[in-house]
Amino acid sequence: MTKTNAGRFFEDYAVGQVIRHAVPRTVKMGERALYHAAYPARHALYSSDQFAQNCGLPFSPLDDMIAFHVVFGKTVPDVSLNAVANLGYAEGRWVTPVWPGDTLRSESEVIGVKQNSNGKTGVVWVRTRGLNQHDELVMEYVRWVMVRKRDLDADAPETVVPELRSVVPVEELVIPKGLNFTKYDFELAGEPHRFGDYEIGEKIDHVDGVTIEEAEHMMATRLWQNTAKVHFDATVRPDGKRLIYGGHVISMARALSFNGLANAQMIVGLNGGAHANPCFSGDTVRAWSEVLDKADTDAPGVGAVRLRLVAVKEGGSFDLKGDDGKYLPHVLLDLDYWALMPV
Amino acid sequence: MTKTNAGRFFEDYAVGQVIRHAVPRTVKMGERALYHAAYPARHALYSSDQFAQNCGLPFSPLDDMIAFHVVFGKTVPDVSLNAVANLGYAEGRWVTPVWPGDTLRSESEVIGVKQNSNGKTGVVWVRTRGLNQHDELVMEYVRWVMVRKRDLDADAPETVVPELRSVVPVEELVIPKGLNFTKYDFELAGEPHRFGDYEIGEKIDHVDGVTIEEAEHMMATRLWQNTAKVHFDATVRPDGKRLIYGGHVISMARALSFNGLANAQMIVGLNGGAHANPCFSGDTVRAWSEVLDKADTDAPGVGAVRLRLVAVKEGGSFDLKGDDGKYLPHVLLDLDYWALMPV
Amino acid sequence: MTKTNAGRFFEDYAVGQVIRHAVPRTVKMGERALYHAAYPARHALYSSDQFAQNCGLPFSPLDDMIAFHVVFGKTVPDVSLNAVANLGYAEGRWVTPVWPGDTLRSESEVIGVKQNSNGKTGVVWVRTRGLNQHDELVMEYVRWVMVRKRDLDADAPETVVPELRSVVPVEELVIPKGLNFTKYDFELAGEPHRFGDYEIGEKIDHVDGVTIEEAEHMMATRLWQNTAKVHFDATVRPDGKRLIYGGHVISMARALSFNGLANAQMIVGLNGGAHANPCFSGDTVRAWSEVLDKADTDAPGVGAVRLRLVAVKEGGSFDLKGDDGKYLPHVLLDLDYWALMPV
Repeated sequence: MTKTNAGRFFEDYAVGQVIRHAVPRTVKMGERALYHAAYPARHALYSSDQFAQNCGLPFSPLDDMIAFHVVFGKTVPDVSLNAVANLGYAEGRWVTPVWPGDTLRSESEVIGVKQNSNGKTGVVWVRTRGLNQHDELVMEYVRWVMVRKRDLDADAPETVVPELRSVVPVEELVIPKGLNFTKYDFELAGEPHRFGDYEIGEKIDHVDGVTIEEAEHMMATRLWQNTAKVHFDATVRPDGKRLIYGGHVISMARALSFNGLANAQMIVGLNGGAHANPCFSGDTVRAWSEVLDKADTDAPGVGAVRLRLVAVKEGGSFDLKGDDGKYLPHVLLDLDYWALMPV
Repeated sequence: MTKTNAGRFFEDYAVGQVIRHAVPRTVKMGERALYHAAYPARHALYSSDQFAQNCGLPFSPLDDMIAFHVVFGKTVPDVSLNAVANLGYAEGRWVTPVWPGDTLRSESEVIGVKQNSNGKTGVVWVRTRGLNQHDELVMEYVRWVMVRKRDLDADAPETVVPELRSVVPVEELVIPKGLNFTKYDFELAGEPHRFGDYEIGEKIDHVDGVTIEEAEHMMATRLWQNTAKVHFDATVRPDGKRLIYGGHVISMARALSFNGLANAQMIVGLNGGAHANPCFSGDTVRAWSEVLDKADTDAPGVGAVRLRLVAVKEGGSFDLKGDDGKYLPHVLLDLDYWALMPV
Repeated sequence: MTKTNAGRFFEDYAVGQVIRHAVPRTVKMGERALYHAAYPARHALYSSDQFAQNCGLPFSPLDDMIAFHVVFGKTVPDVSLNAVANLGYAEGRWVTPVWPGDTLRSESEVIGVKQNSNGKTGVVWVRTRGLNQHDELVMEYVRWVMVRKRDLDADAPETVVPELRSVVPVEELVIPKGLNFTKYDFELAGEPHRFGDYEIGEKIDHVDGVTIEEAEHMMATRLWQNTAKVHFDATVRPDGKRLIYGGHVISMARALSFNGLANAQMIVGLNGGAHANPCFSGDTVRAWSEVLDKADTDAPGVGAVRLRLVAVKEGGSFDLKGDDGKYLPHVLLDLDYWALMPV
């Protein structure tokens, strides 16, 4: 009997199946320090206990993307070890902040399967939930991936394609208990721009760029216990390159977006996302954002902004797709999320 | 008077001498986070406070190899600054877990000296003990190194070669107080294989590989305050390469061994070890293990497994030594240790 | 209205102006762990809680240079985003130790402006103060930078050149409350050399060298939320090189100076400093020190030593400047500081 994990293949998934992922992880201030070393993250709510307290929180939570990466990393051995492609995200919500000392684990429910016409691969949809040590829902999201079949002769399962909303309705966004932006300190936060200053359709070039190194993306990716071979082992791909974890690009772009969106403090919804092109060491990652929508919330002083976050490896334009409707080669990421901002 | 440390030479060691090493070090969760960023470590007992509590511990201890590296690092300026080669380890035991906030220091006793026939070098054996802030023994091991003579005309000391056991007897392994694997959660731990599933002689290819970068091994090695020049200064070796600290390879291989040995949770004994060939940046490290022995323990649900852990820079075979009895060139590490596993 | 920060230009500064910098930052043991991974720091007071307690402190403070880097990093977006050169430091004092959990923020007061004769740039002097969550002064220093004008036709402001002392007088150094070196453990600290063993004029070659990697200096620089483009974006400079943050070189040299100055424990004054030549990835940084002065203090067992710390990329000599009075090309840093040492 082989002891090592060969990962699941397409025919191993069935709608309704719930996978309880290994390995639970206690996260503290060390993980935050590494997050700040890996990305130029400066959002004040995630940097200063006093700033967070001034916003009604007990102290500064861990970055929302730390929650995402830890929850996501655990799913890799069960969901994407034999994945050919990470196709999309939907219906993501951050529900409970992660406080230093919390322990996170993940569960995924298979909500869709569809064999491809080539008979060699299929698409699997999972809804992943991250839970803390009190079994409270920390965050959830749907992800779909293309997975290889083990046995090409295996029968195709009945096709189930889940109905997914293209946007998380603002009423379903969860605002952290106590959050209050009425005494928000814009000077300490780094920028004067508030909710009312942003217009739907407005695009912001975040100006800064970061040239990526192998050691950095591997350290960050390992920190989340994401062990997909392709990120670490230079012998896996024929071109000898290590593919950078898509989440690394998300965090890099989000951190760069501070310059122009310093007050888009908390990420509360993930509407969709595409890793448009692969990212490799040596690429200089830049970012731009587009304001897609705005909405009021019940929390005092808190507005919700729907943003498109685009990571590119070449700056200077807001071009996204070509005439053929496909992402241009310099586009790395197209992410659609909700953030909370002082009104 | 020169102020800098030139290190000890062979004639500076005498059997019975006890060296109290500088610098004590308080270790906390930041060191753990960095350990998880440096190595793909996923053993659940060292990842989650709740998992550790379910195994009878107050919370999750720092990884056993963190204890080893911190204790070892302190000995470098006194023991191996002028070492030509790190020849072996024996009689290693982990005695008290390291909890976040503990302060570690090290002491070494010289237990053997033997001048080599060339008159230029000699072998020194030391028994190193790591102690915490309560002066409790955290871990101990014997290491022997080949050291240069300062003065080639110095008289050879009386040869003392310590008698070292090739294996730490299972009765002398120390099982952490309270450890209890009767409620062990195999699903959260990541693999179903228990003590009874492993057979003596069984070999496991851990499949995954990690291509090593300079920045990573230097950061990890510095973290343990190991300051041997050869790891950091590219001008030391004629070939311009930085030699990777052997302990970095140990931790990398141990972390890779999760895939197939996820339940070999705690390292409690170090029977022996050889750094078979040097490791350099750019090498892709892989690992395989062999089950050498199995033994019962008194702790509820806890078995002891003796494992050979081999790190290689080329996968695909279990070949270890050539016909000449020497390690094959692709073998980096041959380590023999005891781990605790749920029965 | 553009949302991104273009930074201040020369004509945006006026004497008397106080800039309250974003983003406050809570620092804990994770930042310390990363500091120890980035630099070979071993000073015992900053490594062990017990060692610090034996010196009269409640526990081990964060390294003085962590305080400096965090305070400095916050000033970058407001002071040096359009800086052509970082010209000097003066009148630096560390006033209150930084304890894990403290939150730091920075304020700068413009104390001098002087337009250059070319009409294109000017020099701005700022006094920067780092404050903790109790609004206590953590540290302060004067820095002057050469900054571009936005509008070359803008009128030159009235020239104000602050009078700065070349050395912080020993009476104005602040010794941490309770500090007492009468029970100092030289063996655990790593070296036997005490205050009385150092002579004014003595020079010490710190022997060790570290070859610098891109990933390391970027991680360290990001950790302090210093976001100057030139450190991260390989496309900024025509030569495609990333300039290493001068503070990275300071910390590297200070850590290397352990070997020969292990007992120069606390940095309490910064008299001056010049980043003599740029440092790039691949350089091997070495360091030497010169004892410039010595003074008694009121604290029991505590002496003050004034040290010149020189970082170089080529060892073997104490040469600093050429016949033309300019720094030699291999000199990276010339720093003048006060440290506390057991008498």
